[in-house]
Amino acid sequence: MSLDPKCRLLLLSSSHTPATAYLEHARRYLRGLLGGKVRRVLFIPYARVDGDYAGYLARTRPAFKAAGCELAGIHDCAAPAQAIAEAEALAVGGGNTFLLLHELYTRGLLRRLRQRIVHGVPYVGWSAGTNLACSTIRTTNDMPVIWPRRCQALALVPFQINPHYIDAHPPAHTGETRAERLTEFTLLNPHTPVVGLREGSALQVEDGRIRLLGRKSARIFCGGRAWNVAPRESLQFLLEQAA
Amino acid sequence: MSLDPKCRLLLLSSSHTPATAYLEHARRYLRGLLGGKVRRVLFIPYARVDGDYAGYLARTRPAFKAAGCELAGIHDCAAPAQAIAEAEALAVGGGNTFLLLHELYTRGLLRRLRQRIVHGVPYVGWSAGTNLACSTIRTTNDMPVIWPRRCQALALVPFQINPHYIDAHPPAHTGETRAERLTEFTLLNPHTPVVGLREGSALQVEDGRIRLLGRKSARIFCGGRAWNVAPRESLQFLLEQAA
Repeated sequence: MSLDPKCRLLLLSSSHTPATAYLEHARRYLRGLLGGKVRRVLFIPYARVDGDYAGYLARTRPAFKAAGCELAGIHDCAAPAQAIAEAEALAVGGGNTFLLLHELYTRGLLRRLRQRIVHGVPYVGWSAGTNLACSTIRTTNDMPVIWPRRCQALALVPFQINPHYIDAHPPAHTGETRAERLTEFTLLNPHTPVVGLREGSALQVEDGRIRLLGRKSARIFCGGRAWNVAPRESLQFLLEQAA
Repeated sequence: MSLDPKCRLLLLSSSHTPATAYLEHARRYLRGLLGGKVRRVLFIPYARVDGDYAGYLARTRPAFKAAGCELAGIHDCAAPAQAIAEAEALAVGGGNTFLLLHELYTRGLLRRLRQRIVHGVPYVGWSAGTNLACSTIRTTNDMPVIWPRRCQALALVPFQINPHYIDAHPPAHTGETRAERLTEFTLLNPHTPVVGLREGSALQVEDGRIRLLGRKSARIFCGGRAWNVAPRESLQFLLEQAA
């Protein structure tokens, strides 16, 4: 697959960092993508496991308001497919990635979402919403608490993303580190690069170009190797190498 | 589902602890299950991601030898299904749980394994091999680096197990804690208890009874609640509550 040049994406690692409030670090990125152009954003809260979509919408609203956008919840729409068809922009929040994908398949909305985004409707995702932008959800950190019928997701970018990427590991624990898990992915999928996106970071995709936002480097895993890329360095190889 | 009274299971959280060598802590449990009765154990290394099955077998052999058992690798058998049909005992090691299940489905071996175990062939699992003993692999910690056609596993016990259970969490990280992930599972599956099995611990199932082995408590998650159970306390409620 290759990146559709019409795609306009903001893919955030996390909704917040230990030092910042909910989506606070994302406000200027949201203004950059949506400010002055979009008045209303359709919010998809299906990753939320406890089903409190109203509470989730309320928590998410302020950051979008700061970018001049109203936020409407898809759960409040009588016809969700129609709401997607008419959306000016789309936002998919975090929670459990398996549940998010399960809900989109069950409701028959995945393809409709993709159709709008590849035709230029801006997309904002964080955590599970960022996993969803990849070809599959096979680099999520989440537990498979529910089993979607397939692992194929929106396939907007030709590489995988691991949100909440972290080098640290609980002490005195023999489970795999994050780097080991992602190395395992590249062993089984040697031609698919993975971007380990640290908390507070984001990927911006516009005009066929990718930029790393935030102050931290990203950790790239590909073909058995791993290396850091700083925010000012080019990530264009992610588009060229991908198979 | 209910536990088949013929099942003889040793389900280890991990292959080792930070303080002990590979399967060292499991030696006396292996002697208890196999010693004096079983001469040859069939080892299934399919969870191993790098495919080095010979190396994995060599690493695993000493602990079984100490229990008086030879270990034969299923990867060395010309007819794996026949090897399962003739096995005196079965051992399934750790690695990636999704890959393990994928391999068993692809090779058509899952049902054959189950048939032998519910008829009394002893089963030893650790980490991914312990996840495999549950109804599904939906409480694994592993990354879904490959997608098995189904999440249904051996269904030997009527509850879920989370191996490598840990309370600690990397500092300055906003991703979910293990307890949060397992609570999410119980929100979506309120009638299925989960046993958070700490490293060094094991569950022993024999004669329709369950015992927690090792010095640490287990963390039980069920119906939105969570509590610890000490090694001497009864776990029989896991068989009664399960739906």
